[in-house]
Amino acid sequence: MVGYPNQKKSFEKQKQTTSNRGMKFEQMINDTNEYYKEHDIALIYKKPIPIQIVKVDYPSRSGAVIKEAYYKIPSTTDYNGLYKGQYIDFEAKETQHKTSFPLSNIHPHQIEHLKQVEQHGGIGFVLLYVKAQDTIYLLETKDLISYHNRSIKGRKSISFAELREKGHVIAEGFAPRIPYLKVVDYIISQKKA
Amino acid sequence: MVGYPNQKKSFEKQKQTTSNRGMKFEQMINDTNEYYKEHDIALIYKKPIPIQIVKVDYPSRSGAVIKEAYYKIPSTTDYNGLYKGQYIDFEAKETQHKTSFPLSNIHPHQIEHLKQVEQHGGIGFVLLYVKAQDTIYLLETKDLISYHNRSIKGRKSISFAELREKGHVIAEGFAPRIPYLKVVDYIISQKKA
Repeated sequence: MVGYPNQKKSFEKQKQTTSNRGMKFEQMINDTNEYYKEHDIALIYKKPIPIQIVKVDYPSRSGAVIKEAYYKIPSTTDYNGLYKGQYIDFEAKETQHKTSFPLSNIHPHQIEHLKQVEQHGGIGFVLLYVKAQDTIYLLETKDLISYHNRSIKGRKSISFAELREKGHVIAEGFAPRIPYLKVVDYIISQKKA
Repeated sequence: MVGYPNQKKSFEKQKQTTSNRGMKFEQMINDTNEYYKEHDIALIYKKPIPIQIVKVDYPSRSGAVIKEAYYKIPSTTDYNGLYKGQYIDFEAKETQHKTSFPLSNIHPHQIEHLKQVEQHGGIGFVLLYVKAQDTIYLLETKDLISYHNRSIKGRKSISFAELREKGHVIAEGFAPRIPYLKVVDYIISQKKA
């Protein structure tokens, strides 16, 4: 990000990095989790992308090289881990839509997985970045499920008005970037109440 | 496994599948977790193997094909999940050794990860299959750490005598194959006591 010959361009670049637009949502979550880990706050990891490996070569004097592989559909969510003795599990999604979040963006087996997380006493949610509003929401599993159930016979998306009502807005921070555990603290307090 | 022209061979194959020798240890754990999931007992998954993807092709009319990728060293453990509201995290290892388990088989960052799991209130352990004894042990993080600390200046392995003393033997079952959650129940009861 340094050494731009054109000063204006460089400034624009800097400006961008202070907003969501400048960095990929996923990277921001990873940075947040790194912050939580380094500060002994929580232990939350992104799961590797599941890959079906078909062909592996073993060239001499070096390690294995995968020569043919395919992406598999994830059977669970992107992230899970541990915070204050609680099991945490969530999916991260980004939408470019202007008025609503289409539920087709979340696989039915991911919704099923989040439902099971709740049943076994964990805390599950979706972190949703709405690009049109430059806003990040945390939507709890119970609300996700109620919109999912509605979608079977009715509306196939969550309107941004609904998201604003049911979701928790996460104000973007500096360190960590997406302080979603503040909302999790609230969820834990509600769970105990 | 069916249709062997040689009856004796077929019988041997069947006999093998009733013991650990007939099935890979990892597959037995996966079957166990599948059993726990299907019976609404626990939600425990194997994490995908982390892969560094270098080159992806997009042939027409079909999905992406990964043409060059490399295995990465896992930064955490093989398995994690949720049981009775508790965060569960473990590594599975198999040894062919006759008298002891070399600690070099567990990456230092995996030991560090298990240590952090304990610090944040989760339950961490190693499931260890000792082939020479056809026995599966569950070794809790606290014991793993004490052997790891000893290894810095002293013995670099856990003798099978020590394993028998500190580890919990898991009697192989039929459904599930490796009922390790029985030991986890004991760990939970100790935690609460």
